[in-house]
Amino acid sequence: MIELDEMDDDLRKIHEASMAVLEQTGMRFHHPKVLEIMRQNRIRIEGQTAFFTRAQVIDWVSKAPTHFKMHARNPNYDFVVGGDHVEVCPGSGSSFVCEVDGTKHAALMSDYINFLKLYHQSSYYKVNGGIVVQPTDIGRSTIAMMLYATMVYSDKVIITGTGTAEEVEQLMDMLGIVFGGKISLAEKPRCLTIVNTNTPLQFDTNMLDTMMVFNKYKQPVVIAAASMAGTTAPMTLAGTIALANAEVLAGIAVAQMINKGTPVIYGSQSTTSDMKTGSIAIGSPEGALAYQYAARLAKSYGLPCRGGGTLTDAKTLSVQAGYESMLTLLASYSAKTNLIFQSSGIMDSYNSMCYEKFIADLEIIGMVKRYVNGVKVNTETLAVDEITEIGIAGQFLTSDHTMKHFRKEPFLPDISLRGAVTGDPSDKLMDNIKTKKDKLLASYCKPELSTEVQGKLVEYLLECGYDSQLIESLT
Amino acid sequence: MIELDEMDDDLRKIHEASMAVLEQTGMRFHHPKVLEIMRQNRIRIEGQTAFFTRAQVIDWVSKAPTHFKMHARNPNYDFVVGGDHVEVCPGSGSSFVCEVDGTKHAALMSDYINFLKLYHQSSYYKVNGGIVVQPTDIGRSTIAMMLYATMVYSDKVIITGTGTAEEVEQLMDMLGIVFGGKISLAEKPRCLTIVNTNTPLQFDTNMLDTMMVFNKYKQPVVIAAASMAGTTAPMTLAGTIALANAEVLAGIAVAQMINKGTPVIYGSQSTTSDMKTGSIAIGSPEGALAYQYAARLAKSYGLPCRGGGTLTDAKTLSVQAGYESMLTLLASYSAKTNLIFQSSGIMDSYNSMCYEKFIADLEIIGMVKRYVNGVKVNTETLAVDEITEIGIAGQFLTSDHTMKHFRKEPFLPDISLRGAVTGDPSDKLMDNIKTKKDKLLASYCKPELSTEVQGKLVEYLLECGYDSQLIESLT
Repeated sequence: MIELDEMDDDLRKIHEASMAVLEQTGMRFHHPKVLEIMRQNRIRIEGQTAFFTRAQVIDWVSKAPTHFKMHARNPNYDFVVGGDHVEVCPGSGSSFVCEVDGTKHAALMSDYINFLKLYHQSSYYKVNGGIVVQPTDIGRSTIAMMLYATMVYSDKVIITGTGTAEEVEQLMDMLGIVFGGKISLAEKPRCLTIVNTNTPLQFDTNMLDTMMVFNKYKQPVVIAAASMAGTTAPMTLAGTIALANAEVLAGIAVAQMINKGTPVIYGSQSTTSDMKTGSIAIGSPEGALAYQYAARLAKSYGLPCRGGGTLTDAKTLSVQAGYESMLTLLASYSAKTNLIFQSSGIMDSYNSMCYEKFIADLEIIGMVKRYVNGVKVNTETLAVDEITEIGIAGQFLTSDHTMKHFRKEPFLPDISLRGAVTGDPSDKLMDNIKTKKDKLLASYCKPELSTEVQGKLVEYLLECGYDSQLIESLT
Repeated sequence: MIELDEMDDDLRKIHEASMAVLEQTGMRFHHPKVLEIMRQNRIRIEGQTAFFTRAQVIDWVSKAPTHFKMHARNPNYDFVVGGDHVEVCPGSGSSFVCEVDGTKHAALMSDYINFLKLYHQSSYYKVNGGIVVQPTDIGRSTIAMMLYATMVYSDKVIITGTGTAEEVEQLMDMLGIVFGGKISLAEKPRCLTIVNTNTPLQFDTNMLDTMMVFNKYKQPVVIAAASMAGTTAPMTLAGTIALANAEVLAGIAVAQMINKGTPVIYGSQSTTSDMKTGSIAIGSPEGALAYQYAARLAKSYGLPCRGGGTLTDAKTLSVQAGYESMLTLLASYSAKTNLIFQSSGIMDSYNSMCYEKFIADLEIIGMVKRYVNGVKVNTETLAVDEITEIGIAGQFLTSDHTMKHFRKEPFLPDISLRGAVTGDPSDKLMDNIKTKKDKLLASYCKPELSTEVQGKLVEYLLECGYDSQLIESLT
C-alpha cells in the first residue's frame, strides 16, 4: 500500500521532485520491447524516452507486493523480504581480491568458491551467490557457472548475476532443474538479482533483458540506482535522492507492466562523489544518509528495500575501514533496510573483496545486531533482587544471575581485543581474524544436492556449451 | 522539569527499579559532612548509608537546572549545556600515551600540553583541559598545575580534575584570579569537573569533597556512574542501567541539598564487562546502548547529560578502533548527549591517549556531525531545474549548481582515502594523519592572557608551594 499521506514533509518534497523529473524529463529505455510494453500501457514515448504521469507511477508501483517470502533449497534459510525484517546479503561485483595491506589480485573462480563457503558457514547469512566476486579466469559468460557453483556449494537463498535475455533464461532453466520445473518457478521466489539504472535517467539493454526474464518467472529483482552527487546527480543530497527515486520508481512501474504483481525491491546505493577526486565515496556520511532515505522512501511506497552495507573507500584493513563500515551498516540497520547487500568483505569503493575484511565485517554485523536489539527491560533483567542481595560494595561476577545471563546478554566478540593482551596487539588482532576465517573454511561441508539433480545440471550446462573441465572442477 | 509521565514503559520500569534500590539498599557516602547535610534534609541515615524515598529523590532532583550556559574566557566558546545541544569534550583520565602500534609511555606534562594545543586548535571543541592525560612527571598534586596549563594554553571552557577539598579550593582561587574574584564565580559556570560514583552504591571522600566545593561556587559537576555489567553491576543491561541511574540520581539529589539550584550533569559511562577477561568493554554495543539510555533517562528527568565518546578497547589504531569508536560516538550523538566526553584520542579502554587516534577521531566526529545534520530538502537542494537542464545521460560535475554547493554539502575528509592512491595506501593514511596533527600543532598560538593575571596566578601557585621551575616551564 502506498502511504503518501503518511510521508513527512521532506519525503513528500522528494517524491514530488521525482514525479516532476519523470513527467518533464522522462527516462530513456534502451530496449524496444520494453518501450512497446510501456506504449501499450499508455506511457508517452518519444524516441527511447518514456514520460510518466504521477498517476501512472503511483498506479503501477502500487501493484508491487509489499512483502514476499524467499524460498531456499534448505527451508531453514527461508525468509520474508519486507516490513521491518532485515537480512544481510553478500558482497557483489568486485573483480579483485585484496589483502589486508591493499595488495590486489584479479578475482579467480577459487576466490568465488571460497566466498561461497564463507557465506554458507556464517550464521548471519541466509543468502548466497551472485557476483560475490567476478571471477576473471572462467571466460566471458560466467553467470551460469556462478549459479551452478552457488547451488553446489550452498543451499541458502540464491542471488544471481545479470546478463543477456538468453543467459538469464539459462539461469531459469537451471533453477527449474533444481526446483521442480521452470514453469512452476513463478509460484515461489527462489532467487534475487540486482538490476541497476544508468544514472542519470537511463536503463541499459542487458539490465532490462535481465529484468524481463526475472519478471516473467516472478523472481524478485532489486531495482537500484547508484547516483553520485556532484557527477551523475546533483551535488545536493536531496536532489541525488530525488533523481535516484525517480529512476527506481520508473523501473518498478515497468516491472509491473511486464508482469503485474512481480516481486521487486526498491534499491539504492546512491551516495556522494568525492569532490577532490571525482571518485565515488561509498563510506561517506552522505552515503549513509542516502541509504537511509532510500529505505524510508521505499517503506512509504509500501515496497521492500535494499541498501547499505559495510561500505568503505579504505584501501587497507585500516581504522578508516572500521569507521566507515560501521557508519554505513548502522545507518542501514537503523533504517530497517530489508536487504543489506555488500554487508561484508567490500573494500576500496566496491573494487575489491577482502577475506580479512569479511571477517571484521562479521564482527561489525554482530555488534550492530546486538545494538539494534536494544535493552530488554523486565523484572529478571532489572535484577533489583540481585542488587539488593549483593548490596553496597558487593561484586556480581560470581552470582547465579550473572552465570545465567553472561552467554546471551552481551555480544561476545570473535576478533576484537579486550583486556590485557600478551604479545604484539596488531598481530593478535590479525591472528584472531585468520583463526576465524580458517575455522569457517575448515568446518565447511557441502550441502545436500541429489546426484540426479546435479547430473541434470551438468548435462544442461554441457548442452549449453560450457567448458566440461570447468564444470568438473566445480562439481 | 521532571517528565515522568512522558517516560516510555521501559524507562519507567528502570526508574522504578532505581527508586527501589535507593529506598531498600541505599547508598554509602564516605563523608561525615555530606551525611550530616542529608540528615538535616530528613534523609534516613544508618551508619554511612543513606536511604532515599521516591519523593525525596524526585523533589531534590527537580531543583537542578534543566540547562545552563558555560562561559569561556573567550566568549566565542560559550555554549549551552542542556536540551538537544551536543558538545564534544576531551579525553579524560589516561596515564599513558600510546603509539599507533600500541607502544606506550607514561604520560608526561609535555603530552598534556600537546593535547591542550590540539584541543585548542580543533574547531570541533569549545572545551579544554581536565585530565586530558594524567602527567606522571610533575609530582603528586597535579590538578592546580593542570588548570594553570589549561588557562595558559587555551581560552576555551575549562575542565578540571578532582581532589581533596583543599586542592579543589585552590582551583576556585585560581579561577577567581582569572574571572574577577572568587565570590562572583557562582554567577557564571566557568568550569566543569567529573565526579564518579564507586559502583555499586558508594561515593568516595575525594569525590564528595570535590562536589561540595564545586556546588559551593555553583560550578557544574558531572555526576557519573561507570557500572560494569557482570562485575560491579548485574549482567543484564537493564539492571546495570537501573543501578547507575540510582547512583547518579542520589548524587544529584545530594548536590542540590548542598546548594540548591547548583548546575549538575547526569553522567554515565556504564557498559558491560568482557566476560572472557572480566575487563571493561567500553567499545561494546552494550556500552553504546547504556550511553544512549543514560541520555534518555537524563532528558526525562529534565537534566543535562554526559556520556559516550569515541570509545574503544582496541590496543592499536586498527579496524577495531574504527568500528568501535564510530558505534559509540554515533550512539551518543543520536541520543543528543549534551556533553560527549572521551570523544577523541582514547585507546585501550581508557588506558591510553593516542595522538594518531585523536586525529582519526576528529574525522569520525566530522562524519557523525554531517550524518546527524541530515538531508536539507528544499527547492534549491532538490535541484529539479538542474536535473531538467542537464537531462538524460548528462553530467553534473561542471554545473554551476555543483560549483555552488560542493564545498559545503558533503563532509570533506581530512585523512580518509578515496579514489586512486599512489604509493602504499597504509603509508598514505598514516601520512594524512601525521600531516593533520603537525598542521594543528604548527598553527597553534597561545591565546590572550594578561601579564597581570598570569603574574597573579604564578604568585598564587608559588604561595601554595608549587614548584617554581615547573610553573616557569609552563608559562
